[in-house]
Amino acid sequence: MTDARPLLPLVSDAEADPRAQAVFDDIRAVRKTDRVNNFWRALANDPDGLERTWAEVKAVMGEGALDPLVKELVYIAVSVTNGCEYCIRSHSAAARAKGLDDAGLAELFAVIALANKTNALVTGLRPPVDEAFR
Amino acid sequence: MTDARPLLPLVSDAEADPRAQAVFDDIRAVRKTDRVNNFWRALANDPDGLERTWAEVKAVMGEGALDPLVKELVYIAVSVTNGCEYCIRSHSAAARAKGLDDAGLAELFAVIALANKTNALVTGLRPPVDEAFR
Amino acid sequence: MTDARPLLPLVSDAEADPRAQAVFDDIRAVRKTDRVNNFWRALANDPDGLERTWAEVKAVMGEGALDPLVKELVYIAVSVTNGCEYCIRSHSAAARAKGLDDAGLAELFAVIALANKTNALVTGLRPPVDEAFR
Amino acid sequence: MTDARPLLPLVSDAEADPRAQAVFDDIRAVRKTDRVNNFWRALANDPDGLERTWAEVKAVMGEGALDPLVKELVYIAVSVTNGCEYCIRSHSAAARAKGLDDAGLAELFAVIALANKTNALVTGLRPPVDEAFR
Amino acid sequence: MTDARPLLPLVSDAEADPRAQAVFDDIRAVRKTDRVNNFWRALANDPDGLERTWAEVKAVMGEGALDPLVKELVYIAVSVTNGCEYCIRSHSAAARAKGLDDAGLAELFAVIALANKTNALVTGLRPPVDEAFR
Amino acid sequence: MTDARPLLPLVSDAEADPRAQAVFDDIRAVRKTDRVNNFWRALANDPDGLERTWAEVKAVMGEGALDPLVKELVYIAVSVTNGCEYCIRSHSAAARAKGLDDAGLAELFAVIALANKTNALVTGLRPPVDEAFR
Repeated sequence: MTDARPLLPLVSDAEADPRAQAVFDDIRAVRKTDRVNNFWRALANDPDGLERTWAEVKAVMGEGALDPLVKELVYIAVSVTNGCEYCIRSHSAAARAKGLDDAGLAELFAVIALANKTNALVTGLRPPVDEAFR
Repeated sequence: MTDARPLLPLVSDAEADPRAQAVFDDIRAVRKTDRVNNFWRALANDPDGLERTWAEVKAVMGEGALDPLVKELVYIAVSVTNGCEYCIRSHSAAARAKGLDDAGLAELFAVIALANKTNALVTGLRPPVDEAFR
Repeated sequence: MTDARPLLPLVSDAEADPRAQAVFDDIRAVRKTDRVNNFWRALANDPDGLERTWAEVKAVMGEGALDPLVKELVYIAVSVTNGCEYCIRSHSAAARAKGLDDAGLAELFAVIALANKTNALVTGLRPPVDEAFR
Repeated sequence: MTDARPLLPLVSDAEADPRAQAVFDDIRAVRKTDRVNNFWRALANDPDGLERTWAEVKAVMGEGALDPLVKELVYIAVSVTNGCEYCIRSHSAAARAKGLDDAGLAELFAVIALANKTNALVTGLRPPVDEAFR
Repeated sequence: MTDARPLLPLVSDAEADPRAQAVFDDIRAVRKTDRVNNFWRALANDPDGLERTWAEVKAVMGEGALDPLVKELVYIAVSVTNGCEYCIRSHSAAARAKGLDDAGLAELFAVIALANKTNALVTGLRPPVDEAFR
Repeated sequence: MTDARPLLPLVSDAEADPRAQAVFDDIRAVRKTDRVNNFWRALANDPDGLERTWAEVKAVMGEGALDPLVKELVYIAVSVTNGCEYCIRSHSAAARAKGLDDAGLAELFAVIALANKTNALVTGLRPPVDEAFR
């Protein structure tokens, strides 16, 4: 059922539009790595979208009211619920880099699974929203 | 499109099966409240399911490798992605009771929204999983 | 958040295109009732779609390799997973008319909830498909 | 896009925590087989979750108000709607072991497909819930 | 099951942070209207997110390789598949303002419904990707 | 996690039921090609479903109030949101055959991604539907 090829080509550094190249450079600088992940290389087919999405990731995923590791866990929860394999793998790697271990990951999956279970129970049973939640 | 009635009746204390009554009592004791939320009253139509789900909530959502507030945020992320209104409202109330404020909730939604956006980009563009994530 | 008005008007018998009127008549004859549900009246804005969908419902949901009540349970499982309230309510009513009682409905929701839970566990943990399933 | 490795390691019998080992033994006894599926081996990274989930599967999926084969069909319907390949393959194998043949499986998919189609029609058209469903 | 109150308060012009006020003014100027929709007023609890999202909407939804009306239809397709009522209603209104009539909307729903149906068939049947699609 | 085998066998021309063979012939005639895609060969296990679905595709996806290319874009939007790889690949190929280029595809994904993002924001924030959308 699966095909390893991306739907749009991965853009190499040599092929990249100057704006895409600038984003690649910033990714390397911010993440202190030589590597630019395949997601960004696929998105580089749309330099506007690449610039916008990288700026959004920097603004949203950094330190704020919530801790960056917590944000990775939230990201994984969404990605599991949507069934996005690449997203689960890339953000699990990011969460591990920020300190999550196997026990934490297993516990995270237990919470995600319970939430999907009770979401289904609520959607079927349709209890009215309690006054106390308002 | 909407109808306020639950699909199965909310079970009152008087109508509850003895096992359901014991769960209601434990909910009141653990949560230090007189109130039993409508979700549990709807689930009480299935006393086995009620016992099992309440035990699972106590085991999974408490202190562990992850903080209980973090678990509420993960729960909300799943519930938003699944579109479960009752779940969003009840776990937002639980997260607020554990210290989340308006700024934290707004930031949480920004992370959930970004994850749903990039999940869609990845699912469309289909970049291969990077070696580095393995 | 909710608005009770349909997105396209419900089509009355008087307003119905002759093909839509013929479908309404067939629904009444097959179901032995005077009532045509709001779903069919909304779909009647597209007489081709109404004819095609009613024919499909008659062909797919009747007796076959699977029992009609079993098909209603499958329908409810899809509708809960997609979060479609109208669909849950209409097919729960259909399942009750075919003999499902409160205990059966509660048990159905327990299966749907467990499946949503283990789907999430599998999607996160990503075990390889066992040889034995092939 | 796909990677055959699980996100957490599959736990062998030798590596299993004693509680996980006990669950593996019970799976073998109940299912009258030497094989423990990869799902359970992946879940064994969380022995609490493994115990709880196996107990839930035994309680929910056995004989009750609904027939065990019917429950497998409901499980497949949820798994197709969520797009969980492992779940579709494992529960199709389970349904075949309980008597489902190719014709039954093809008919099941036709019901699941129709439900997903009409769910979308209802979600777009938004007909109000009929009084008769209440 | 439903509650009309937003999860975070709608921000009035008087309460808006200066950056949010600037976005509100730009929305009014670009859309040639006095009205600022509730979505933007809810998002104004996060002025950064409001600025970013409004800039993204302007960049993505305008004239480009694809026509603005076509983009509204794509938006509705996503929103129906995700079950987002507000999104379906607001973008149906936007599509009507760009020229979509009842017949076009009914036809759009037929395409969305067919896609959801065949997505389910493919997900269940799991045909391998044809060489010709590569 | 993935397995290349279909869940039901692909039906060859020689194995096809006469009704399935007639559909295969019509697909070849309408599409002016010798090739019958794997989706149709998998669906041929259910000749009724094959006839019905092919007739529906011909009726819904052709010229009408909406342009056939626009319908392909809508189809892709649904398929990305549901995470159906085969569907994304087959309808991207169809859209390219109708004139979509890389820039159009990249722009399409930007719209789909934005819609998934704002769907999540709306589902979390729950703004009430504006009077103006009614």
